[in-house]
Amino acid sequence: MCEEGPVTTVTLEERVLARNDRQAQANRDLLAARRIRAVNLMSSPGSGKTTLLERTVRELRRPVAVIEGDQRTPLDAERIRAAGAPVTQINTGAGCHLDAAMTRRALDELAPAPGSLLFVENVGNLICPSLFDLGEDARVVIVSVTEGADKPLKYPYMFAVADLVVINKTDLLPYVDFDVDTCRRHITAVNPRAAILTVSATRGDGLPAWYAWLTTMIG
Amino acid sequence: MCEEGPVTTVTLEERVLARNDRQAQANRDLLAARRIRAVNLMSSPGSGKTTLLERTVRELRRPVAVIEGDQRTPLDAERIRAAGAPVTQINTGAGCHLDAAMTRRALDELAPAPGSLLFVENVGNLICPSLFDLGEDARVVIVSVTEGADKPLKYPYMFAVADLVVINKTDLLPYVDFDVDTCRRHITAVNPRAAILTVSATRGDGLPAWYAWLTTMIG
Repeated sequence: MCEEGPVTTVTLEERVLARNDRQAQANRDLLAARRIRAVNLMSSPGSGKTTLLERTVRELRRPVAVIEGDQRTPLDAERIRAAGAPVTQINTGAGCHLDAAMTRRALDELAPAPGSLLFVENVGNLICPSLFDLGEDARVVIVSVTEGADKPLKYPYMFAVADLVVINKTDLLPYVDFDVDTCRRHITAVNPRAAILTVSATRGDGLPAWYAWLTTMIG
Repeated sequence: MCEEGPVTTVTLEERVLARNDRQAQANRDLLAARRIRAVNLMSSPGSGKTTLLERTVRELRRPVAVIEGDQRTPLDAERIRAAGAPVTQINTGAGCHLDAAMTRRALDELAPAPGSLLFVENVGNLICPSLFDLGEDARVVIVSVTEGADKPLKYPYMFAVADLVVINKTDLLPYVDFDVDTCRRHITAVNPRAAILTVSATRGDGLPAWYAWLTTMIG
């Protein structure tokens, strides 16, 4: 019986998540068979995910393919295509995150070359995407210095699942009240195993370390 | 019967939303009986909701009370209390938005003075809070210039419910690639009835128009 109430909501969510986890494992198997490594890129809206990807597509000496997630518009996919990578856009409508089934459909359409690096740019949201495994090898969370150093404490679920946290927009540090060391400390408090990098995706500062992390992650 | 599948998910969401709407109406009736006007403040994490509220508490010549929503921490409530307003913090845990029932519990605890202006600072999220009526009189969406002018098009559900959109952090305009007129055009394309203000909550630019809008809204 499907009754109103939080308990039923939780039960349904558990079913949804269990089904998602099964699809995520299927995605992971498919990607492994094709020697494709996948990175799930998550952040608030406007933290610089697409700008970081544009530069990565242009500068990383390796085949890159991208799945773009947004509620609406093909704007980000157009930017990635202009940067030179094959891309598929997912529009989630009212949805607040990508899931493994959406990712699989996009993957079938995109058909990345074997051996390539696949980025999945999630919907801009510092909460919901953290719950949904897409079959990725690594999760990268971006936080920009304009958002404030307290964000890891206030949105701990997202930072807890990160393999790497990228502190972006360091070019704006002179103009905002943001202490990098405080933010690092908060990230580590929530997730001691997360690597942390500071970059300016627009200016290029710190990007060699980002490329090095990707190369190490790719193995 | 509660079966897996998107149809059941939608049905459950509709029930959850219908129940929320009933509670929101009860909140609205209670607030009206106490001559309390309520503003639901929504944005991405780090767009400047709390900074705008701190200044508003200090500068608006009127009793203000605040309900603070965050996944975790009492950090924002502490800032508001230091600014001089009564405040209640709601921590949603894994939850991605406030709802009318949480708001009611906070309202009963806070018990704002009759005639006061109540701000509800929602969880930082440009998607999920747009679906949940809290019983407020007005919805204000904040977008900061560091997030990019394309956000109204990419997250249209949030901008569609706004009575007012505040473009914040105009002090950073010299350092970012953000065209105010383009952003205004995108907001109007998604929601022709939304008022639009540009402010710098840290520097104070544009705040007289914000206070004037609040006073007009309060009636």
